[in-house]
Amino acid sequence: MSKKVVTFGEIMLRLTPPNHERFIQADSFNVIYGGGEANTAVSLANYGLDARFVTKLPNNPIGQAALNEVRRFGVDTDYIARGGDRLGIYYCENGASQRPSNVVYDRAHSAIAEAESADFDWEVIFADVDWFHYTGITPALSEQMSDVTLEAVKAAKKHGVKVSCDLNYRAKLWSRERAGQVMEGLMEYTDVVIANEEDAEMVFDIKSGSDITSGDLNVEGYKDVAKQLIDRFDLELVGSHLRISHSASHNGWLVVLFDGENFVQSTKYEITIIDRVGGGDSFAGGLIYSLVTGKKLQEAAEFGAAASCLKQSIPGDFNHVSVKEVETLAGGNASGRVKR
Amino acid sequence: MSKKVVTFGEIMLRLTPPNHERFIQADSFNVIYGGGEANTAVSLANYGLDARFVTKLPNNPIGQAALNEVRRFGVDTDYIARGGDRLGIYYCENGASQRPSNVVYDRAHSAIAEAESADFDWEVIFADVDWFHYTGITPALSEQMSDVTLEAVKAAKKHGVKVSCDLNYRAKLWSRERAGQVMEGLMEYTDVVIANEEDAEMVFDIKSGSDITSGDLNVEGYKDVAKQLIDRFDLELVGSHLRISHSASHNGWLVVLFDGENFVQSTKYEITIIDRVGGGDSFAGGLIYSLVTGKKLQEAAEFGAAASCLKQSIPGDFNHVSVKEVETLAGGNASGRVKR
Amino acid sequence: MSKKVVTFGEIMLRLTPPNHERFIQADSFNVIYGGGEANTAVSLANYGLDARFVTKLPNNPIGQAALNEVRRFGVDTDYIARGGDRLGIYYCENGASQRPSNVVYDRAHSAIAEAESADFDWEVIFADVDWFHYTGITPALSEQMSDVTLEAVKAAKKHGVKVSCDLNYRAKLWSRERAGQVMEGLMEYTDVVIANEEDAEMVFDIKSGSDITSGDLNVEGYKDVAKQLIDRFDLELVGSHLRISHSASHNGWLVVLFDGENFVQSTKYEITIIDRVGGGDSFAGGLIYSLVTGKKLQEAAEFGAAASCLKQSIPGDFNHVSVKEVETLAGGNASGRVKR
Amino acid sequence: MSKKVVTFGEIMLRLTPPNHERFIQADSFNVIYGGGEANTAVSLANYGLDARFVTKLPNNPIGQAALNEVRRFGVDTDYIARGGDRLGIYYCENGASQRPSNVVYDRAHSAIAEAESADFDWEVIFADVDWFHYTGITPALSEQMSDVTLEAVKAAKKHGVKVSCDLNYRAKLWSRERAGQVMEGLMEYTDVVIANEEDAEMVFDIKSGSDITSGDLNVEGYKDVAKQLIDRFDLELVGSHLRISHSASHNGWLVVLFDGENFVQSTKYEITIIDRVGGGDSFAGGLIYSLVTGKKLQEAAEFGAAASCLKQSIPGDFNHVSVKEVETLAGGNASGRVKR
Amino acid sequence: MSKKVVTFGEIMLRLTPPNHERFIQADSFNVIYGGGEANTAVSLANYGLDARFVTKLPNNPIGQAALNEVRRFGVDTDYIARGGDRLGIYYCENGASQRPSNVVYDRAHSAIAEAESADFDWEVIFADVDWFHYTGITPALSEQMSDVTLEAVKAAKKHGVKVSCDLNYRAKLWSRERAGQVMEGLMEYTDVVIANEEDAEMVFDIKSGSDITSGDLNVEGYKDVAKQLIDRFDLELVGSHLRISHSASHNGWLVVLFDGENFVQSTKYEITIIDRVGGGDSFAGGLIYSLVTGKKLQEAAEFGAAASCLKQSIPGDFNHVSVKEVETLAGGNASGRVKR
Amino acid sequence: MSKKVVTFGEIMLRLTPPNHERFIQADSFNVIYGGGEANTAVSLANYGLDARFVTKLPNNPIGQAALNEVRRFGVDTDYIARGGDRLGIYYCENGASQRPSNVVYDRAHSAIAEAESADFDWEVIFADVDWFHYTGITPALSEQMSDVTLEAVKAAKKHGVKVSCDLNYRAKLWSRERAGQVMEGLMEYTDVVIANEEDAEMVFDIKSGSDITSGDLNVEGYKDVAKQLIDRFDLELVGSHLRISHSASHNGWLVVLFDGENFVQSTKYEITIIDRVGGGDSFAGGLIYSLVTGKKLQEAAEFGAAASCLKQSIPGDFNHVSVKEVETLAGGNASGRVKR
Repeated sequence: MSKKVVTFGEIMLRLTPPNHERFIQADSFNVIYGGGEANTAVSLANYGLDARFVTKLPNNPIGQAALNEVRRFGVDTDYIARGGDRLGIYYCENGASQRPSNVVYDRAHSAIAEAESADFDWEVIFADVDWFHYTGITPALSEQMSDVTLEAVKAAKKHGVKVSCDLNYRAKLWSRERAGQVMEGLMEYTDVVIANEEDAEMVFDIKSGSDITSGDLNVEGYKDVAKQLIDRFDLELVGSHLRISHSASHNGWLVVLFDGENFVQSTKYEITIIDRVGGGDSFAGGLIYSLVTGKKLQEAAEFGAAASCLKQSIPGDFNHVSVKEVETLAGGNASGRVKR
Repeated sequence: MSKKVVTFGEIMLRLTPPNHERFIQADSFNVIYGGGEANTAVSLANYGLDARFVTKLPNNPIGQAALNEVRRFGVDTDYIARGGDRLGIYYCENGASQRPSNVVYDRAHSAIAEAESADFDWEVIFADVDWFHYTGITPALSEQMSDVTLEAVKAAKKHGVKVSCDLNYRAKLWSRERAGQVMEGLMEYTDVVIANEEDAEMVFDIKSGSDITSGDLNVEGYKDVAKQLIDRFDLELVGSHLRISHSASHNGWLVVLFDGENFVQSTKYEITIIDRVGGGDSFAGGLIYSLVTGKKLQEAAEFGAAASCLKQSIPGDFNHVSVKEVETLAGGNASGRVKR
Repeated sequence: MSKKVVTFGEIMLRLTPPNHERFIQADSFNVIYGGGEANTAVSLANYGLDARFVTKLPNNPIGQAALNEVRRFGVDTDYIARGGDRLGIYYCENGASQRPSNVVYDRAHSAIAEAESADFDWEVIFADVDWFHYTGITPALSEQMSDVTLEAVKAAKKHGVKVSCDLNYRAKLWSRERAGQVMEGLMEYTDVVIANEEDAEMVFDIKSGSDITSGDLNVEGYKDVAKQLIDRFDLELVGSHLRISHSASHNGWLVVLFDGENFVQSTKYEITIIDRVGGGDSFAGGLIYSLVTGKKLQEAAEFGAAASCLKQSIPGDFNHVSVKEVETLAGGNASGRVKR
Repeated sequence: MSKKVVTFGEIMLRLTPPNHERFIQADSFNVIYGGGEANTAVSLANYGLDARFVTKLPNNPIGQAALNEVRRFGVDTDYIARGGDRLGIYYCENGASQRPSNVVYDRAHSAIAEAESADFDWEVIFADVDWFHYTGITPALSEQMSDVTLEAVKAAKKHGVKVSCDLNYRAKLWSRERAGQVMEGLMEYTDVVIANEEDAEMVFDIKSGSDITSGDLNVEGYKDVAKQLIDRFDLELVGSHLRISHSASHNGWLVVLFDGENFVQSTKYEITIIDRVGGGDSFAGGLIYSLVTGKKLQEAAEFGAAASCLKQSIPGDFNHVSVKEVETLAGGNASGRVKR
Repeated sequence: MSKKVVTFGEIMLRLTPPNHERFIQADSFNVIYGGGEANTAVSLANYGLDARFVTKLPNNPIGQAALNEVRRFGVDTDYIARGGDRLGIYYCENGASQRPSNVVYDRAHSAIAEAESADFDWEVIFADVDWFHYTGITPALSEQMSDVTLEAVKAAKKHGVKVSCDLNYRAKLWSRERAGQVMEGLMEYTDVVIANEEDAEMVFDIKSGSDITSGDLNVEGYKDVAKQLIDRFDLELVGSHLRISHSASHNGWLVVLFDGENFVQSTKYEITIIDRVGGGDSFAGGLIYSLVTGKKLQEAAEFGAAASCLKQSIPGDFNHVSVKEVETLAGGNASGRVKR
Repeated sequence: MSKKVVTFGEIMLRLTPPNHERFIQADSFNVIYGGGEANTAVSLANYGLDARFVTKLPNNPIGQAALNEVRRFGVDTDYIARGGDRLGIYYCENGASQRPSNVVYDRAHSAIAEAESADFDWEVIFADVDWFHYTGITPALSEQMSDVTLEAVKAAKKHGVKVSCDLNYRAKLWSRERAGQVMEGLMEYTDVVIANEEDAEMVFDIKSGSDITSGDLNVEGYKDVAKQLIDRFDLELVGSHLRISHSASHNGWLVVLFDGENFVQSTKYEITIIDRVGGGDSFAGGLIYSLVTGKKLQEAAEFGAAASCLKQSIPGDFNHVSVKEVETLAGGNASGRVKR
C-alpha cells in the first residue's frame, strides 16, 4: 500500500516571459502554477505515493486552475480550502549566461496568507498519513499562518506523522527575528530539516564558512551546520542541496545528508539549466520518498540529487520524472542518450 | 500647434488566454497593459494630440513595462509617479458566441489605489493643457483617490482646462451611495460626461426605460437620461455609446450625443468582435478629439462611433487607428476592402 | 451527496492544426485529448457530480497524458485499465465558412479497441453508482468491445444503475448490419437514448423525412423517430440535438426530448463556431445532469441545449462550463455581455 | 495525360501579423510566400495538372524558400531563373469587421522586376505546354518585364499554347497610360481575360455602372464590360469575380463568364473570411482547370466560384483544395458539415 | 550532370513537444516529417544531387504532407507508392542536460510496413541511377519489407548501382536472430556499410571493446569491427559515427572510415545539441556525397563528420546545409562567427 | 541633470526565424527593430541619460513601428525625419554550435540611405548635447549619407559636443578605398574610436597580428592598433571588444581601452549566447556612459565589458539592462543566481 504524505503551503501563479525575454519585452507570459509544497507533492505523486496538498485557494477560475494543475498530476486536492481574495503571483524572468533570473513577488493578501485556523481540519487531514512536509515560507506568509502551521505540526505529531521542513528563508516575507522565533517553535515538532547554509544562518544564526556567491563549495561547512541543527533541535536528519552557480545557464549541483552520525555526499552534477525553479522542492520530494521507502543514507542522497538534477532540465515548477528515471540517473547513467 | 490633453487613472496588466480559451485551459496569457484613461490617452496620441497620462506605477519591471507601453505609442509619461506595491491586474477571458467574456479582478492594493496627494503636482501637470479626462473608476479606487481626483478637477478648472468624465460605475469598487456622493462633488468641475444608462442610474439614480440585456435599444431613453444629467450638473455635453449584444461575437454599436439642445445619433455599426475591451474608452478618445478640434455635433458623433467601432476589430485595449482611418469609416466606407 | 455517474469508451489524441490551417500547411498540431464518453464525464464533473471515466490506456506517457487531462478536470480515473499498444488518434482540421472540418482517423489497434473483459471489474466500478453512459462508438471499436459493452450494461442493470446511450453511428467502424445487431442487444439494458435521425436510420432502419444536409429542419420527423425508438426498445426518454449547418462557421442548434408522452423543443441558438467537436457529448452531459437532478422535461431540454451551445464556443473537446453558466444562458441571457 | 500549364510572374514574401494585430503591435510576422501567378500555379497542381511556374528569384535563402514553397505543392520550378538583388516583399495586415486589410508594398528592385530577356528560354519552357497564364502585374513590374512578357505571349502563340491574362491593374506599379499601351500589345496574343470592372476601366477605359465600394452589384454591367473586351481584342472568354464587401470579415462572392454568346453567373456565396488574399488567383486557377478539362460554361463558372470561395477560408495565398472538394461545393453542399 | 541517388525506407510523423517540455506537459506538438532514408535523401538534394526517395504513403492528407515535405527540399517523389492505412508516428521528447530524449513509437501497421512487392517497379526506379541507400530499419518493418528490400538491392546490382546500408538495428522492430538472417542476405548486394559497434554486435555478433554509455571512446575498437565487416561481407567501405554523450545537451562527435586498407578518423567536434535526431542519417548523406563525387578517404570522413555535426544544430530531422557550408566547417572553421 | 547624447544612423527591421530554425524552415519571423546607433541609444536611455536617436524613416506603419520601438524604451525620437521609400531589412538566422549565424541584407534604397542634408537640422539637434555617436555604417549607406555624416560631426564639434565612432566596416556597403577616404575625413572631428582589428585594417590599413577566426587572442595586437589610431587621428581614446568564437553558442568576450598612455583590459567573460547581435553596440553604450559620467579607465572597461556581456543573454538588438545590473556584474558577481 502506498505511503501517504501531506504537504502544506502556498501555490502561486508564476508568470514567465518565453524564450529568455526580459519582463519589459514580453508580449505573453507562460502560465505556471507552482510553489514549494505543491511542487514537492507533485514529485511524490509522480513516485507513486499518495500525496495530498493542503492550501487555500480563491473561489475563482484562477484558483481553480491552480487546483486543477496539481490534481492533473495525481495529487489529492480534497482538503484544499476555498475562499479569500486572490492567488499569489510571482513574475519570474529566466536568466541566461551572466544575467540572473529575476523574481518580482506579488503575493501579499493571497487566500492562503489570509487563511485561518478554521480552514483546515487537521484531524481529518492527517488520518492514516505517514509524513507531513512544510517549508519556512508557509508560516512566513502571515501571523495567522504562523499559528496554523504550528497547529499543523502539533496535530501531525499527535497522529504519529513524521514531519519535515525546508527552512527556505525569505527575507521579503519576514524579519530574521520573527523567523527565528516562529521556526524555533516549529522545530520542536519537526524530525527532518532541509537547510542550506544561508537559511540556517538567517533563521537560527548558525554559521559556516562557505561563500555561496563565489562558486566555491565548502562541503565541510555544511556538515558543521547540519550538526548544529541536529544538536539544537534533536532532529533525525538534516539535508542540503548545494548549488554552484557558474552562470545562470550552467550550475553544479550536489546533495549532502547528515543523520547525526554519518555525513554523505552525492554525485556532483553539472547541469545545463532549462528551469532552475523547483530544484530545492524536488530534492525535498526525492528525500522524503527515499525516507518513507527506507532507502539507506547514501542511496537517499543519490536519489535526492538525481531527482533534483533532472528537475532543472524540465520547464515549469514541477518535477515530472518517475522513480525509474531518477534511479537510472542515480545509478550512474548521466549520458543523456536517447531512450527508444 | 497640437492640443494638450491629460488623462488620469489606472493602467493595469490584462492577462488574456489566447485563442478564445477559458482561464482553466490556458498555458499562456497574452500580456496587455491597459486601462480606461490610458486607453483614451493612446487614442488621442494616435490622432496627433499631445496626450499626457498621469498615474502611479510600482518601481519594478512590471510597472516599467506598463509605462513603456503607453510611451511606445507617443503618450507623455513624464508625470507618472513611481512607487507603491504592485500593478493592478485583471484576468480577462474573451467570450465567443453565447459565452460572455469573463473578467476576474485582482486590482486591490495597487500603486495608484494607494497613491496620495503628494504624488501629483497638478500645477505643473496642467500647464498649457487644454483638456482633462478621468473616469468614475479613478475616484473609486480608494478614499485617497477620491480626494486626489477632486484636487485634480479643481486644479484643472483653475487652469481653465475643460474636464470630461466617463462615469463608468463599477460595483466591485464602491457602493452606489459612495459613488453618488463622490461623483456629485466631481460633477461641479466637469463639463462633459460620458454615461450609459446603467451608469447614470447606479451613480445618480437617473433612470430611463432601456433594457440593456435584451438586445433592444431605447434611444429616446438615452436622450432623457442625458437631459437629466445636463440639467442637474450644468454640463455642456453628454455622450453615450450603445452596445446591442447579439452575442459575444457580434454586437451592434452606435453613439448618441446631447448638448442640451440637439440630440444626435450616429450611424449604427454591426461589429464582428475581435476585442471589445476599450470600446468605451476609444469613444471617449474620439469624442474628445472631436471637441478639441471643433467638430460639429453630428460629426463628433460619427467620429466617436467610427473610432470605437474600429477599436473592437483590434486586439488589446488600445485603439491603433489614425484620424484618416476613422474619417474614412465615418465618411461611410464600411466595406472593409483592402487598402493597397 | 453528489450523484455518481460512470461513462465508458475511448479517449483519443486529437491533433488539430492551429488557426484554421489545413493539415498540409501545419507546422504544429494542437494537442487535445478527448472522446465522446470522456467529454461527457468532464461535463458531469464540471457540474459537480462524481464522474468516473472507464477506458483502457497504453502504459506510456501519451496514455498518461490522456488520463491526466480528464483527472485535471475532476474526473475519477481510478478504474482506467492500463496496457495495450497505442492511443487512438484522430487528425481534425477545423473548417471555416464553406470549407468543412475534415477528420482523418487513425484509431485502429488502440488499447481500448483491443481491451478484454478482464480489464474491467464492473462489480466494483458500479458500486453506489447512479448512472451509466456509453455511446455506439464503444461497442463498434472491436468484437471484444461489443461483448464488454454488453457485460457493462448488464452489470449496470444488476446494480440498479440507469443506462443511457448516444447511438453515434460511425460507418468507418462497423457495418449497418453489425451495428444494428449489437445495438439491439444493448438496448435491452438501456433506458435513455440520444439519437439523431441519421443514427436511428443507419442503426435501426428507423426513418423520418428530415434532410440533414439541406439546412432545413424537420422537428416533427424527430418526434416520429423518437416515438419509434421508445416503442421498439421500451425506453424512458429519447433526446436529439439538431444542427443546422449554415456553414462551417455558423450553425443553428437546438434540442428535442420525447419521454413517450411529451415532446419538447428547446430554444434555438445561432452559434458562431469556435470548436464544434464535442457538441453532442456536451448535450449528453447536460441531459444526464438534468435527469439525475430531477429537472422537468422542458428544463432538461433547455439545460442540454444551452450546455451544448456553450461548448461550441470553447476550443477543445471538453465543455468547461459550470451549472451556473449553463443556467444563465438557459434562462435566456444569450447576449454574451462581459461578466465583470 | 495531365495538361501542362505555365504561369509567369512574381512571387513575394508576405509578412502578416498574427491574430488580426496591426503592424505596429506585431512581435512576429507570419511568413507566406505568394503572388498572383504562383498562387494560380499551386491551384492547378492541386487539381492534378502539370503546373510550371516561371519567375526570377534571388540566389539567397529567402529566394530559395520561395521556390521551395511552390515546389512543396507540386509545381515544377525547373525554369525559375536565379539571380538579382532581392525578393519583393509586401506587408499585409489582416482586417476585421469595418477595419480593412492594409497592404504596404516593398517590391521595387526585386529579382523579377530587374530580370531580362536572357533569363527565360521560352522555346524550352513552352515545349508540350497547353496553357499559359500571366497577370497585368507581370508587365507592370518594369520596362524590361513589359518586353519579356510580350516575348512570352508571342512564344506561347508560336507553340500553339492558349493564353490567359488576369488584368489586375495596380496603380502603384504603373500609370493608366502605360498600362493601356502595354496591355493592348499583349491582348493580341491573349485568348482569355479575367477582369473586374475597375481593371477594364483603368487599363482600357471600358466602363460600366457598378459601384464597387457600395456593396451593390451590377451584374449586367459586367456583361457589358466583357462584351466590349471580347469585341475589342477578339477574345474567347472573359471572366470576372465579384466581391461584395459587407465588411472585412464577411463578403459576398460570385463569378460571371461571357464567351461572346452566353453570359453565365455562378452561385453567390456568403463568405466568412479567413484570408481573402489569393481569391482572384484561385478563381483563375479554377477557370483554367475548367477550360483545359473541357467543362461547359456554367460548370466552369460554378467550379471557379466554388474554388475561390474555398480559398478564402484558408490562411495564406495558396488554395489548398482538391478537385473533389471544389466539386462538392460546386455541387451545392455548402453546409460545412464535418467530413469524417 | 548530377549523380542520381535512390533511398528507400520509411518516413514518419514526428511529434515533439516544444521548448524541452515533457510529453505530459505539452499543449502542442511540433510537426516534423522525417525518417532515416528520407533524411538522407534531403541531405543529398541539398548537395545538388538528383535524390529520389521511395516509400509508400497513405492516400490521405497526412501522407501527402509527408510527401510534400521531402518534395519541398528538392527530392524526387515520383516513385512513392500511395495507399495503405496510416503514416507511422513517433513521439519524440527532446532531452536536456542529464535527462535523455525519449521516443515512443507508434509505427506498426504503417503503409510502408504493409507495402508489397507490386508497389515498387525497381526496373524503372533504378534507370540511370548511381547509388542506392537503405537502412536496417527498412527490412525490419515487416516480413514483406524484408523481401522487398532484397528485391531492391538485387535490382540495384543488376543495374550496376552502388549500394550502401546503415545497419541501424532497432530491437523494438525485430529480434537479433531475424535481423542477422535478413541482413546477411542483403549484405551480398551491399558495397558500403555504416555501422556503429552496437549495430554490428546486435546484428552480426561482431564485437569490440567500446562502452557506448560510458562517454569513453574506443576508436581502435571501431577499426576492428569495420575490418570484420569488410572481411565477412566483402565490402568496399565501412563507416561509423561515434557519439560521446556528455549529456543530452552536449555531445562529442566524430567519424571513422575504413576501406580495408586505410583507417581514417575525422576531427572531433564538441556539439551543443539543438536536435540530435537525424545525426546518423546526415552522416550517411555526407558520406554518399563524398563517395559519388570522388573525395579521398580523409576528405570523405571530414565532410561526413562536418555535415552531421551541423545537422545537430538544426531543428527537425533534415540537414539543411549546403556543400559550401559543410566544406567551410570541414576546412576547419568551427568558430560559428556570423556570416554577413 | 542627465547628460544628453545623440546617435545617428540606421534602424532596420530584423527578421529572425524562431527556435534556431534556418530561413528555409521558418513559418514565422520574429520582428525586431534595431541597428547599431539605435541600439546604443537604447542602452544610454536605459542608463538614465537623455538619448536622442536621429534617422530617417518611411512614412508608413513599418517605419512607425521602428520609431515606436525606440520611443518605447525612452529614446527621444523628435528629430527622426520621415519620408522615403522603405525601411531597410536584414534577415538574421541565429546560429548554434558550429553553425554560424547567417545574415542576408536587404537594406538598399532605405529612407535613411536616400536621406539628404535637408532632412536634419543639426543646429537644433545638437543644442545642449554632450555627446554624439555614429558608426562607420552611417556614411557607408550612400554618398549623400557620407556628406550628411560629415556635416553632423562638424556641427557637433561646433557645438562643443564630444564625438565617438564605431568603425564597423561592412564590405557589402562600400569598398576599402571609399571607406578609408570618407572615414579619414570624419576622424578629424572624432574624439573616441571603437574599432576591432579587422575594422582598422580594412578602413585604415592599420594591422596587427591577431587572427580573428582562430579563436586565439592577441591582446597586444590591439594595443598596437589602438596606438596607431590615436597617433594618426589625434584621438582621446580607442576601445575594442574582443570576441573569441568557440562556437555560435559559446563565446569568450572582453574589452580593451587605450587612452594614449594607459592600456587596460577588462575581465574576460565566457558567454552562453542567447543573441549576439548588438554586442558591439552595447559596448559602445557602456563606454559612452562611462565616459560621460567620468568613470576611470579600468572602470570604464569593466562597465563596457559587463554591459555587452549581459546584452548577449537577451533576445533582440537592444540591451535591456540597468546601471545597477551592469555594475553588479562588473563588480564581480557573474554567478547568475536568482534575484528574489
